[in-house]
Amino acid sequence: MPKNIAAFGEVMMRLQVPGFELLSQASTLNYSFSGTGVNVASALGRFGHNGYLVTRLPVNPLGDAAAAYLRKLGVASSLIIRGGSYLGMYFLENGFGVRPSRVTYSNRMDSSFNTSPEGTYDYEGIAMEIDAIHFCGITLSMNDGVRNHMKALARAVKQHGGTVIFDCNYRPSLWGEDGYTRAKPHYEEMLELADIVMMNEKDAIFTLGMETTKEQREDQLVELIPVVAKRYGIRTIAGTHRSIHSDNSHSLRGFIFKDQSFTFSSTLTFSVYDRIGAGDAYTSGIIHGEMEGFPAVKTVQFAATAGMLAHTVVGDTPMASAEEVLRAMTESIGDVER
Amino acid sequence: MPKNIAAFGEVMMRLQVPGFELLSQASTLNYSFSGTGVNVASALGRFGHNGYLVTRLPVNPLGDAAAAYLRKLGVASSLIIRGGSYLGMYFLENGFGVRPSRVTYSNRMDSSFNTSPEGTYDYEGIAMEIDAIHFCGITLSMNDGVRNHMKALARAVKQHGGTVIFDCNYRPSLWGEDGYTRAKPHYEEMLELADIVMMNEKDAIFTLGMETTKEQREDQLVELIPVVAKRYGIRTIAGTHRSIHSDNSHSLRGFIFKDQSFTFSSTLTFSVYDRIGAGDAYTSGIIHGEMEGFPAVKTVQFAATAGMLAHTVVGDTPMASAEEVLRAMTESIGDVER
Amino acid sequence: MPKNIAAFGEVMMRLQVPGFELLSQASTLNYSFSGTGVNVASALGRFGHNGYLVTRLPVNPLGDAAAAYLRKLGVASSLIIRGGSYLGMYFLENGFGVRPSRVTYSNRMDSSFNTSPEGTYDYEGIAMEIDAIHFCGITLSMNDGVRNHMKALARAVKQHGGTVIFDCNYRPSLWGEDGYTRAKPHYEEMLELADIVMMNEKDAIFTLGMETTKEQREDQLVELIPVVAKRYGIRTIAGTHRSIHSDNSHSLRGFIFKDQSFTFSSTLTFSVYDRIGAGDAYTSGIIHGEMEGFPAVKTVQFAATAGMLAHTVVGDTPMASAEEVLRAMTESIGDVER
Amino acid sequence: MPKNIAAFGEVMMRLQVPGFELLSQASTLNYSFSGTGVNVASALGRFGHNGYLVTRLPVNPLGDAAAAYLRKLGVASSLIIRGGSYLGMYFLENGFGVRPSRVTYSNRMDSSFNTSPEGTYDYEGIAMEIDAIHFCGITLSMNDGVRNHMKALARAVKQHGGTVIFDCNYRPSLWGEDGYTRAKPHYEEMLELADIVMMNEKDAIFTLGMETTKEQREDQLVELIPVVAKRYGIRTIAGTHRSIHSDNSHSLRGFIFKDQSFTFSSTLTFSVYDRIGAGDAYTSGIIHGEMEGFPAVKTVQFAATAGMLAHTVVGDTPMASAEEVLRAMTESIGDVER
Amino acid sequence: MPKNIAAFGEVMMRLQVPGFELLSQASTLNYSFSGTGVNVASALGRFGHNGYLVTRLPVNPLGDAAAAYLRKLGVASSLIIRGGSYLGMYFLENGFGVRPSRVTYSNRMDSSFNTSPEGTYDYEGIAMEIDAIHFCGITLSMNDGVRNHMKALARAVKQHGGTVIFDCNYRPSLWGEDGYTRAKPHYEEMLELADIVMMNEKDAIFTLGMETTKEQREDQLVELIPVVAKRYGIRTIAGTHRSIHSDNSHSLRGFIFKDQSFTFSSTLTFSVYDRIGAGDAYTSGIIHGEMEGFPAVKTVQFAATAGMLAHTVVGDTPMASAEEVLRAMTESIGDVER
Amino acid sequence: MPKNIAAFGEVMMRLQVPGFELLSQASTLNYSFSGTGVNVASALGRFGHNGYLVTRLPVNPLGDAAAAYLRKLGVASSLIIRGGSYLGMYFLENGFGVRPSRVTYSNRMDSSFNTSPEGTYDYEGIAMEIDAIHFCGITLSMNDGVRNHMKALARAVKQHGGTVIFDCNYRPSLWGEDGYTRAKPHYEEMLELADIVMMNEKDAIFTLGMETTKEQREDQLVELIPVVAKRYGIRTIAGTHRSIHSDNSHSLRGFIFKDQSFTFSSTLTFSVYDRIGAGDAYTSGIIHGEMEGFPAVKTVQFAATAGMLAHTVVGDTPMASAEEVLRAMTESIGDVER
Repeated sequence: MPKNIAAFGEVMMRLQVPGFELLSQASTLNYSFSGTGVNVASALGRFGHNGYLVTRLPVNPLGDAAAAYLRKLGVASSLIIRGGSYLGMYFLENGFGVRPSRVTYSNRMDSSFNTSPEGTYDYEGIAMEIDAIHFCGITLSMNDGVRNHMKALARAVKQHGGTVIFDCNYRPSLWGEDGYTRAKPHYEEMLELADIVMMNEKDAIFTLGMETTKEQREDQLVELIPVVAKRYGIRTIAGTHRSIHSDNSHSLRGFIFKDQSFTFSSTLTFSVYDRIGAGDAYTSGIIHGEMEGFPAVKTVQFAATAGMLAHTVVGDTPMASAEEVLRAMTESIGDVER
Repeated sequence: MPKNIAAFGEVMMRLQVPGFELLSQASTLNYSFSGTGVNVASALGRFGHNGYLVTRLPVNPLGDAAAAYLRKLGVASSLIIRGGSYLGMYFLENGFGVRPSRVTYSNRMDSSFNTSPEGTYDYEGIAMEIDAIHFCGITLSMNDGVRNHMKALARAVKQHGGTVIFDCNYRPSLWGEDGYTRAKPHYEEMLELADIVMMNEKDAIFTLGMETTKEQREDQLVELIPVVAKRYGIRTIAGTHRSIHSDNSHSLRGFIFKDQSFTFSSTLTFSVYDRIGAGDAYTSGIIHGEMEGFPAVKTVQFAATAGMLAHTVVGDTPMASAEEVLRAMTESIGDVER
Repeated sequence: MPKNIAAFGEVMMRLQVPGFELLSQASTLNYSFSGTGVNVASALGRFGHNGYLVTRLPVNPLGDAAAAYLRKLGVASSLIIRGGSYLGMYFLENGFGVRPSRVTYSNRMDSSFNTSPEGTYDYEGIAMEIDAIHFCGITLSMNDGVRNHMKALARAVKQHGGTVIFDCNYRPSLWGEDGYTRAKPHYEEMLELADIVMMNEKDAIFTLGMETTKEQREDQLVELIPVVAKRYGIRTIAGTHRSIHSDNSHSLRGFIFKDQSFTFSSTLTFSVYDRIGAGDAYTSGIIHGEMEGFPAVKTVQFAATAGMLAHTVVGDTPMASAEEVLRAMTESIGDVER
Repeated sequence: MPKNIAAFGEVMMRLQVPGFELLSQASTLNYSFSGTGVNVASALGRFGHNGYLVTRLPVNPLGDAAAAYLRKLGVASSLIIRGGSYLGMYFLENGFGVRPSRVTYSNRMDSSFNTSPEGTYDYEGIAMEIDAIHFCGITLSMNDGVRNHMKALARAVKQHGGTVIFDCNYRPSLWGEDGYTRAKPHYEEMLELADIVMMNEKDAIFTLGMETTKEQREDQLVELIPVVAKRYGIRTIAGTHRSIHSDNSHSLRGFIFKDQSFTFSSTLTFSVYDRIGAGDAYTSGIIHGEMEGFPAVKTVQFAATAGMLAHTVVGDTPMASAEEVLRAMTESIGDVER
Repeated sequence: MPKNIAAFGEVMMRLQVPGFELLSQASTLNYSFSGTGVNVASALGRFGHNGYLVTRLPVNPLGDAAAAYLRKLGVASSLIIRGGSYLGMYFLENGFGVRPSRVTYSNRMDSSFNTSPEGTYDYEGIAMEIDAIHFCGITLSMNDGVRNHMKALARAVKQHGGTVIFDCNYRPSLWGEDGYTRAKPHYEEMLELADIVMMNEKDAIFTLGMETTKEQREDQLVELIPVVAKRYGIRTIAGTHRSIHSDNSHSLRGFIFKDQSFTFSSTLTFSVYDRIGAGDAYTSGIIHGEMEGFPAVKTVQFAATAGMLAHTVVGDTPMASAEEVLRAMTESIGDVER
Repeated sequence: MPKNIAAFGEVMMRLQVPGFELLSQASTLNYSFSGTGVNVASALGRFGHNGYLVTRLPVNPLGDAAAAYLRKLGVASSLIIRGGSYLGMYFLENGFGVRPSRVTYSNRMDSSFNTSPEGTYDYEGIAMEIDAIHFCGITLSMNDGVRNHMKALARAVKQHGGTVIFDCNYRPSLWGEDGYTRAKPHYEEMLELADIVMMNEKDAIFTLGMETTKEQREDQLVELIPVVAKRYGIRTIAGTHRSIHSDNSHSLRGFIFKDQSFTFSSTLTFSVYDRIGAGDAYTSGIIHGEMEGFPAVKTVQFAATAGMLAHTVVGDTPMASAEEVLRAMTESIGDVER
C-alpha cells in the first residue's frame, strides 16, 4: 500500500560539463536539480509511494526551474516553500579512468534552504500528513537554523507516530577541522530520534568515536553496529560496503541489521555511468522494504539492486520503478528489449 | 564481379535518445532510417555490388527524408515505390551495463510498406533486373498483404533463375500468442523457395517444431541443420551463435552448412557500440561470399568479421567496405591510423 | 480564487527539426508533448488555477515521457488514464520568411486517446471534482468513440453545474471531403452544451452554414455571432482576428460577446517565434477572465496579451504567469531585466 | 520531360560556425558539401531532371563523405571520378545585421578537382549521355589544367548537339591583380561556345571591357546585353539585379533576353536565411524553363522565385521542388501548413 | 602607439540558456566569463593596446576556467590575483520581441573579488606599470572593502600621472532602497579622481541630485554635463542616448564633451543580437580615441560604431578590431565577404 | 624555478567527428588547435614554466582562432609570427574497440609554418630569451625551408648555452618511400645538436640503421641506446614502450638513460580516452624533470604518469598540472572528489 513519505533536504542545481572536458576546456553545461532528499522522494515515488519533499526554493526563475524539474521527477510538491533568493549549486567535471571526477560547490550557505527563517515549515501539519520522513547528515552540517528545523521536524513526526529515517552521510569537507567532535552531539540527537538509520562501521568509529580491535571492515561492522542500535534505540540499521575497481566498475554489498541479526545482499559488480546519488537509491530501497514489511533478505537485495541500477542512469536521481528493480534482481544481462 | 542484389523490406525511422538518458529525461532525438533490407542492400553496396531496396515510402516529408537517407547510404533507389502516408518508427533508449536498451515501436501496421496494395510492385520487372533477392522473417509477421507480395516476388525471382535468400529472424513480440503455430506454414513456404537461409537450431526447434535429444546448442545445430537443408531443399544455411558478456562485449561464432558439411568461423570477441542491425552485416557477408564463389571458410570468416565490425559503428546499418572487412580479418588491434 | 478547471484532449508528441533545416537535411529532433488540452490546462495552472487534463496515455516509455512532461508543465495529473499503446505524433519543420512551416502527422487514429474504450473515463467523478471543462473541435473530428466520451463528459459537467467551454477549432484536413456537412451536427450538439464558445464568423459561415451579406470580416462577425449566441443559448462567445505580415510579425485583435454586446481588445502587433498553440493561450485568458469575473474589457485584453506572449516562447504551450501577462498589458518594450 | 543535364565543377567542403560566433569564439562546425555545380545539378534533380555532376573527388574519408552527401542531395553520381588527395574547403562565419558574413578559403589549388590530370574525364562519353551542361566562371579562374578540361568538355557537348550553359560568376579575389585582363580571353572563349549565359551589365563592362554612357544599371543592362548576345552568338542571356536592405532582407529582379527582347520578373523582396548558393537556384530555374520550353515570362518568374526560396533554406544548395516553386509563385504568405 | 591600460572589476560567469527557452524549459547552458572590466580590457587589446585586468579569481576549477577564458579574449593576465572560493554568476534567459530578456544573479557578494582582503592588490606596483585605468559604478555598489581598493587604486594611478576613467553605470537593483543617497558621496569621490567620465544627464539628475528645467533629454544633457565637468574637474565626459524599437533594433547616438564643447556621433540604427556589454565597447572606443589623441569627432564616431558592432556579436565582450570598426564607419551593408 | 622553454613546431587544426560516427555519417565537427610543439609548450606551462611556441600562423580568421586557442591553453605567444594564408589541418574519426581511429590530413605543405620564408624567425633573439627548446622529427620531414629554420634555431640555442631537446618521432607516411634513407642525415644532424633526445630502439634500428642480435625490444633498447648516446654525444635519452590491449586500455613503461645508466618507470596500465598527443606529455615530463634537476627515478615516473593522465583528457594537449601529476603518482583510484 502506498505510503506518504517525505524527505527534508536541500535542492541543489547540478551543472555538469558534458562528456569528459574540464571547465577550462568546455563552453556548455547540462543542468538538473537534485539532492539527497530529492533522490529519496523521487525514488519512493517510482516505488509507488507519494514522495514529498520538504524544502525551500527561491522566488526567481531558478526556483521555478527547480520546481518544474522536481515535478517532472514525480516528487510531490505541496510541502515545498518558496522564499529567499539563492539556490545551492555544484559544478561537476566527469573523470575518466584514473582521472577522478571533480565537484566544485558554489556558495550554498546563502541558499533559500540554508537561510530559511524560523516559522518556515509547519512541523505539526507536515507530521500529520506523512507516514515517514527522511533526513540526512549533510543537512546537519550546514548551520544552526537548518539543524533546528531538522530536529524539530523529526520530533514532530516521532510524536505523531511516524517513522524517522536518518542517513548519517558524514562529509568531511562540510564539517571542516575538528569536524567529528563538532558533529557528534548533533548525530547523537538524530540517532536517538531515528527508527531507521543508514550508516556503516566508519560512522561508528569516526563520528561516534567508538573503538574496535578488529581490522577487517566486515568484522568491525558486525562488532559495532549492534552496539549502536542498542545504545540509541534504533530499530533498523542498514548500509553498504563499496569497492572501486580500475575498469570503471564498482562492487556493492548491502547489509541490514534488525531484530538482533544481520542480513547481507549478494555482492553486485557492475559498470558505473554516474556514481552521484546512487547511495540514495539504496536508502530508498531500504525504506521501501521496511515500509512494505518485506523480509530482511528481500529488503536488502532490493535496496542493493536499486543502488546498482542507479549507477547506470544519467543524473543523481534514481529512475527505476519497483518492477524494474525486481526484474533486475532475477534476470541475467540481456540483449536489446524489443 | 558486381551483382545486382535486392532486398525486400520495410524502412523504419529510428529515433534514438542520444547518450544514456531515458525518453522521460531527454528532449532531443537522433534519427536515421534503417531496416533489415536497408542494412543488407547498403552493406552489399559497400562490398561492391548494386544493392537495391524494394520497398514503399510515404509521399510526404518523412518519405523524402527516408529516400534521401537511403541514397546517402548508397542504396540503389530505382525500385522504391512512393505511396501511402506513414512510416514505421521505433524509439531507442540506450542501455548501460546491467541496464538493457529499450525499443518502443510506434504503429507500424499502417506504414506505407505494410499497407501496399496489390499491384504495387512489378514482380516480373524486378526479377528480370536482379541476380538475387533477400527476404526476412520480420516482414513475414506483418499481414497477409505484405506476405503475398513477399512470396510472389520470391517466386518470380526463382522462376527467372535468381537466388532467393531468406533470413528466418523470428521475433516473438511480432507474432504474439501461438506465434510459432501461426508462423510455421509461412516459414515453410519461404524455406522451400529459398537457396540460402539464415537460421540456427532455435528456428528449427521452435518455428519448425523439430525435436532433438541434444542439450548443447552446438550439438543441436549439427544435428538439426542438415535435416532442415534436406527437407526444404536449401543449398546453403548459415547463422551465428552469440554470447553476451557482462563488460559490454559479445562473442560471435558463425557457421555455414553447404555441400553436406559445416564450416565455422573463429570465435570473435569484441566491445559493442551499437548492437542493432549487426546480424544483417553477417547475412550480407554470407551473401557476398556465396555470390562471389568464395570457399566456405573464407565466406564464414568474412561474414563473422563483417558482423563484428557492424557492432562498432553508429546506427543500424553496416559501414565497412569489403577492404575494411578483409583488413580486420588479418590485423591485430592497432594504434591510430595516420 | 483558484478554480478546478479541466481540459479534455489528446496529448501529442511534437518532433521538431531544430533551426531551419528540412527533415531530409537534419539528423536530430527536439521533442515535447502538447495538444490543445495540454496548453489550456497548463496556462490555467500558470494563472493560478488547478489545471487538470483528462486524457489517456500509453503504457510504455513514450507514455511515461509524456506524463513527466505534463507534470513539468504544471498540469494536474490525477485524471490521466494509462492504457493502449500509441501516442499521436507530429513532425514540425520550421519555415523561414516566405517559406511556410510544415507539419506532418504520424498516425494518430490509433493513439491511446483516440482508441479509448467505453468506460475509460469516470464522467460523474470528474464532473464532481471540477468547476469547468474545456473541449476542442479537433477532438470532435476524430471518431465516434472519442466523440461519445466528449459529449458524455460535457453533459455530466453541465448537469453538475460546471461550466462547459468549447473551442470550435475546425481543421479542414481532419474532416476531409464534405467535412462541413459531416461536422455540423456534432458542432451543434456541443454548442448547445456550451457556456463559453471560442469561434469567429468563419465557423458560423462554414461549419454552421449561416449566411451573410456583409463582405468585411468585422461586419460579418458583428452580424452573425449574436445570432449564434441566441440560437444555441451560449453565454459568452470569444475569438480573434489575425493578420500575417511579411516580416514575420502578426497582428491580433480579440473580441468577446456577452450580455448582448461586443468588446474588443486593442490590435496587438508583434514578432512571432512559435505560432503553434498561441490560440490556446487566448482561450485560456478568456476562461481565466470569465471564471474570475473580470469585466469584459479586462478579459479580452488579458486574453489577447496572453495570446501575444505565447507567440514569443518556445513550444506549443504558453509559459506566462498571470503577473507576466498583466505586466505586458501595461509596459512598453524594455531593455534587459536585471 | 526529364532531361539529362550535367554540371562541371568543384565540390567544396563548407565548414560553418553554427549560430553567430566567430571562429575564435566557437568550438564546433557544421559541415556540408556544395559548389556551383552541386547546387545546379541538385536543383535540376528537384525540378524532375537527372542532374549529373562531373567532378573529381579524393580517395579518402573526405571524398567518401562528399560522395555520400551528393547522393543524399539527389545528384546523379555516375560521372564522378575518384582520384587525388584533397578537397577544397571554405570556412563560413555568419554575419548579423551590420556585421557581414566572412568566408575563409583553405587551400583549394591542390584539390582533386583542380589537379585532375589529362585524361581524367571522358569528354565524348559524357557528351553522348547528356542533353545540356553547365559551367561556371569560378572554375575558369583556377588554372590551365581545369580550364582545358572545361573548354574541351564544352566543345564536345556542343559538337554532339547538347546545350552549353555558362555562368560568368566573376570573383575578383580569385583572379587577383589584373584579373579582368587575364580573364577576358577565357570568358570570350566560353561565351562563344555557350547557348545560355548567366551574366548582367557588370560582366559586360568589367570582364568584357564594354563601354556605356548610361548611369543606371537597368539602362546599362538594356544597352549592353543585346550587344553581347549578338557578338558571341548567344541564344539566351539571363541574370538578376539584387538590392540588400538593412533589415536582413534582399530584393531580387530577374531578367531574360532572348529572341531580341527582354522579359523581367517582378521584384521579389524577402528575408534572407542563407545567401550563399542562392544565385545557382536562379540559374537552375532558367535552365529548367529553357529546357522545358517555357515562355520567357514563366521562365524568368520561376527562376526568380526559385532564387528567392533558396535564400530561405539552410546550406548552399536549393531544396525546393518544381511544385514548391510554382506554389510560391502564386500564393501569399501563409500560416503553418498542417 | 600601444598603451598599457588596465580595468579594475569583477569577472562574472555568464550562464545563458541557448536559444529562446526559459530556465524551466531547457537543460543546457552556454557559459562564458565577462564583466565591465573584462569587456574594456579585451576591447582595448583588440584596438592594439595591452589591456590588463585587475581582479581576483578563486583557486578552483571555476577560477581556472575564467583565467583561461580571459587569456583567450586577449586580456593581459599578469595583474590577476588568485584567492578565495567563489565567482559571481548570472543566468541569462533570452527574450524575444515583446518578451524581455531576464537576468538572475547568483550570490555575488561572496565572490573572490568582492571579498578580497586588504593587501590583495599592489596599488603602487600597478600604478607604475600602466598609463590609464578604468573603473565602474557597479563595483562601487558592492561593499566597503572593494570600494576601498577602488579608490586607493585610483589615487595611486592619479599620483603616478596615469589617466583615471570612471563609468558611472548606476544599477538601481544593486544599490537598493535610498540608493541614490547612499551612492552620491562615493560617486563624487570617484568623479573628483577621474579624467574621463562615462555618464549622461540621468546620472547628473538622479545620482548627483542636479536639477534642470528642461524636458528633452538632449536639452538636459547640454545643460547639465558642462556643470558636472566643471564642478568635479573632469577633462572629458562621454556617453550615449539609446532608443529601443519594436523590431529588435536599437538606435544609438554618442556624445563627447571636452574643451567646453559637445561633439555628437551620427545616430546609428541596427539590429541587436546581444545587448549586454555593448556599452563597454562604446567606453573602450572613447578611451582609445582619447589615448590616441583622435579629434573628438573621430573619437565619438569610432566609439559609437564600436558600440554598434558589439550588439551584433555573441557574448558580452566586444570582438571587433580597430580595423573592423574603421571599416564599419565608412562602408554600407555588404554582401558576404569572400 | 620556472624556466623559459620554447617549442618549435606547426600548429594544426584538429577537426574531430564527435562521438563515433564516420565523416560520411555525421554533420558536425569539434575543432581545436594542437601539434607537438603546442602540446609541449602548454604542458610545460602547467608544470610552472613559461612555455613559448615558435611558429607561424596565417593572417586570417583561422589564424586568429588558433592564436586565441593557444592563449587559452596558456602558451606564451610573444614568439609567434603571423604571415601566410593556410593552416595545416587533420580530420579525426574516432575508432571503437576493434575499429581503429582514422586521421585524414588536409594539405599541410602550404601551411604558413611550412612555407615560412627565410628571415621569418629571429634565431638570435629567441636563443637569448630561452633556457631550452624542443624540436620534433615531424617538422624534419616537411621540406628544406622548415628544416633549415629548425637546424639554425637549434644551433643558435646551443651556442647561447641553451638546452636542445629533440623528439625523433619518425612518421613513415610523411617520409614516404625510401624514407629512412632520406631521413637519416637530417636526424643525425639534429642528434648531434641535442642534449636530450626522445627515442627508443626502433629509431636506432630503422632511422639510424643500427643492428642488433637481440629479439626482445627491452634487450634491443638496452643494447642500442647507450651506443646512440655515445656516438652523438647526447646527455639524456628517454622514451617509452607501449602495449595496446583489446579492452581499450594501454600499458606504458618509460625509461631514461643518462650518466651511463638506465632507469625505468613502473608499468602503468589505464583506460584510454584520447591517445593523440599523449606522447608529448611524457616528453614534457622528462623536460620538466631534467630542467628541475629531479633524480632520474622521479623524472621517469613523473613523465610516465603525465603521459598516462594525458590519455584521459579530451584533445591532443595535456591538461594536468604538476600537482595533479604528483598526486596521481601516489594515489589509488578514488571516488568522486567533493
